[in-house]
Amino acid sequence: MYNKITDDDIKLLCTIAGEENVLSGDAISPDYGHDELGGIEKMPEVLVRVHKTEEIAQIMKLAWEKTIPVTVRGSGTGLVGSAVPVEGGILLETTQMNKILELDKNNLTVTVQPGVLLMELAAFAEENDFLYPPDPGEKSATIGGNISTNAGGMRAVKYGVTRDYVRELTVVTPKGEILVLGGKVAKNSSGYSLKDLVVGSEGTLCIITEAVLKLVPLPKVSISLLVPFPDMKSAIEAVPQIIRSKVTPTAIEYMSRDTILFSESYLGKKFPDTKNDAYILLTFDGNTDAQVEEDMKNVAELCLEIGALDAYIVDTEERKKAVWSARGAFLEAIKASTTEMDECDVVVPVDKVDEFIKFTHKLAEETGVRIPSFGHAGDGNLHVYICRDQLNNDEWEDVLSKCFDCMYQKAKELGGLVSGEHGIGFAKKEYLKELLGETPISLMQGIKKVFDEKNILNPGKICF
Amino acid sequence: MYNKITDDDIKLLCTIAGEENVLSGDAISPDYGHDELGGIEKMPEVLVRVHKTEEIAQIMKLAWEKTIPVTVRGSGTGLVGSAVPVEGGILLETTQMNKILELDKNNLTVTVQPGVLLMELAAFAEENDFLYPPDPGEKSATIGGNISTNAGGMRAVKYGVTRDYVRELTVVTPKGEILVLGGKVAKNSSGYSLKDLVVGSEGTLCIITEAVLKLVPLPKVSISLLVPFPDMKSAIEAVPQIIRSKVTPTAIEYMSRDTILFSESYLGKKFPDTKNDAYILLTFDGNTDAQVEEDMKNVAELCLEIGALDAYIVDTEERKKAVWSARGAFLEAIKASTTEMDECDVVVPVDKVDEFIKFTHKLAEETGVRIPSFGHAGDGNLHVYICRDQLNNDEWEDVLSKCFDCMYQKAKELGGLVSGEHGIGFAKKEYLKELLGETPISLMQGIKKVFDEKNILNPGKICF
Repeated sequence: MYNKITDDDIKLLCTIAGEENVLSGDAISPDYGHDELGGIEKMPEVLVRVHKTEEIAQIMKLAWEKTIPVTVRGSGTGLVGSAVPVEGGILLETTQMNKILELDKNNLTVTVQPGVLLMELAAFAEENDFLYPPDPGEKSATIGGNISTNAGGMRAVKYGVTRDYVRELTVVTPKGEILVLGGKVAKNSSGYSLKDLVVGSEGTLCIITEAVLKLVPLPKVSISLLVPFPDMKSAIEAVPQIIRSKVTPTAIEYMSRDTILFSESYLGKKFPDTKNDAYILLTFDGNTDAQVEEDMKNVAELCLEIGALDAYIVDTEERKKAVWSARGAFLEAIKASTTEMDECDVVVPVDKVDEFIKFTHKLAEETGVRIPSFGHAGDGNLHVYICRDQLNNDEWEDVLSKCFDCMYQKAKELGGLVSGEHGIGFAKKEYLKELLGETPISLMQGIKKVFDEKNILNPGKICF
Repeated sequence: MYNKITDDDIKLLCTIAGEENVLSGDAISPDYGHDELGGIEKMPEVLVRVHKTEEIAQIMKLAWEKTIPVTVRGSGTGLVGSAVPVEGGILLETTQMNKILELDKNNLTVTVQPGVLLMELAAFAEENDFLYPPDPGEKSATIGGNISTNAGGMRAVKYGVTRDYVRELTVVTPKGEILVLGGKVAKNSSGYSLKDLVVGSEGTLCIITEAVLKLVPLPKVSISLLVPFPDMKSAIEAVPQIIRSKVTPTAIEYMSRDTILFSESYLGKKFPDTKNDAYILLTFDGNTDAQVEEDMKNVAELCLEIGALDAYIVDTEERKKAVWSARGAFLEAIKASTTEMDECDVVVPVDKVDEFIKFTHKLAEETGVRIPSFGHAGDGNLHVYICRDQLNNDEWEDVLSKCFDCMYQKAKELGGLVSGEHGIGFAKKEYLKELLGETPISLMQGIKKVFDEKNILNPGKICF
């Protein structure tokens, strides 16, 4: 179905992208054959480090003509195999397209290339007294990757997700045409929103080569509150009550003592408190101390009324760093605690988080595997990890498949969805089919064909 | 291509929807042959007042089988002919599906049927101490219509547009299948966002039969500020400076003396000030008087520094009503001031609004027609009206076509788009094609075919 890459193709790629940017065979590091989680592996035939939209357009024209599969990769921080070239072919790496092109203070937008890292964009915005609100845990992800998965992050409770901040995308189609979708405008009712279709499409419809993103003025004050509870049940049950109280925290994260201890050991740094079984961590932001402190005080009092054991204000830079760097390292820390792991990134209604976590605890008991979790209690998006520990291959495959089947089934029962922010990629395709049913999947397949009838762009992902 | 409706079809429709809800021939009021603006006219063969999702699914199964066109209509407040059954067939009226089904205080959502009016939803939210932020000028539009056009409204500066508040849609496909798109969740990376594709698709892909919408806690304080300027140029030039100052007003509207006088005469009510040529009207909201007043004071001082003649605080209920009811009546008032009119709803970057308005003034001079405008200076979405006044048919068609060509061309030059919030419908199809070019339109046509290969659902709109 697909053609293998020939020496002539490689010569053409060198002419387009420069010889120094085209690698093939053993010259490609094995890292390019997998993503952060590593469960899905396949090496590309050629790796091309791209620098310009026009280059990508030329490469896609070549690939379209020759029916060669093309997969796009940013930093490779994905967890579901989206950037793994499962059909081989060309892997385009966008990390060299890492320029911040414009800060437009009249329209509150920033224009970036797709290889800019989230942490670079966040720092640039702050230096200019702006906030780029989406705040996924993986700060070394590229913005192109964030847009492609519609990444959410911690601040979604108050600020929403990546989609809400994408104004305009420059993209290259599978046939090599350059299009601009959306615009540097705040409203748009001009036909079907192709831009919103590309957001979250995991590199399967078009290649994002430039993005205009919305910024907001940087809130002047931001304080966190760490609230210990005697157990996970009471911690999680507090969250809908906080939301009902009509204070809007910027973030509400939950974490268990176990996870915090993994993180302490992984980072070699102390967390302010590890005496208790369960914690919620909240952030509040705003423009005056008085307002932020009042919000925080109201939530602290509410938490203490309903069973919290304490409420620590996290306001010094040092304490903030200790708490949030621990939170940021949870995934890595759990990974380091086991031989292999796989993850489940379901999202459920906020008032079903409690029931879902209890379900994973029961599942851990029944199956005898460790299933640590952490996540975004305030927006219903959980990160649940199934740890292999000492299991042999067969046992691991059995238990993994059993746990996933049960968890996605439970998410469906609770009105949830397969992925809150990590995407479907290769790893979660079957669960998406199972949860959505035939018609939505066949609509997605139809849309994929409209953009890419030869199925050359990131084949084998989401719905095929 | 399409089949005409037979007596047998009508009998089947009566069985599905009840005889009392099925009207045909002369029993249908001529109102159902056009929308608010009236330029596009075509009567349906049958009007069906629907009450339930299952009923709609049955009707679509029948229509699909018999290849009968179906158009959905809410309150008929559209301006581009989206709800006009240009191919005849069945018109489904959703105004009887007007129940608010659930207020979920744990997830901050409200579940509504599509025929709920915007003003009913707004009032319901406020009664429960919530805000449904989207605030289009036409309060008697249905929510189904608002979602179908991705309506924006006045508060988009701070709160975004309808799309940002749609969590889940229950829809009926052209083949009569019932699907749930999205979920009662704050994050979603579970395949292509079919929900976001349906939002803004003007009833061409699916029929929306239920929606879960996000609410926010009602801000405790809301104050408006009316700022007169010596001329439109200085009024509009103030807006990017306000935005640069990093205060985020809820709304920034601009209005000319002419438009205010039309509105006074139309409503028979006085506006607080009509001495000056141009005004901007701002709203600020928040949870404390101190914060809102500080924001307002900063903006008032800034405006006075850069040429404003005064700054009136609009804080009493009476004054608020006078100002905002005048603003709400602008469209009707301009309509009443002329024999016929057509409108242009472009959106441009905020710092190009000034240039676009100047362009319309020049165009009015050159063509000798009146071109009043008003709109959302803070989000770049303008409502520009071309007034027929005493022109005969040929003159009117000539001038209208010339003005539209020039204005959409200018919008394109400025990086703008055809429609900020009113949609494309039937009236703006050619301008959309012209502005976007061939490939985006053919992608839209492809998507339409994926949902509706027989092209029976609202045919003749957007891209066909």
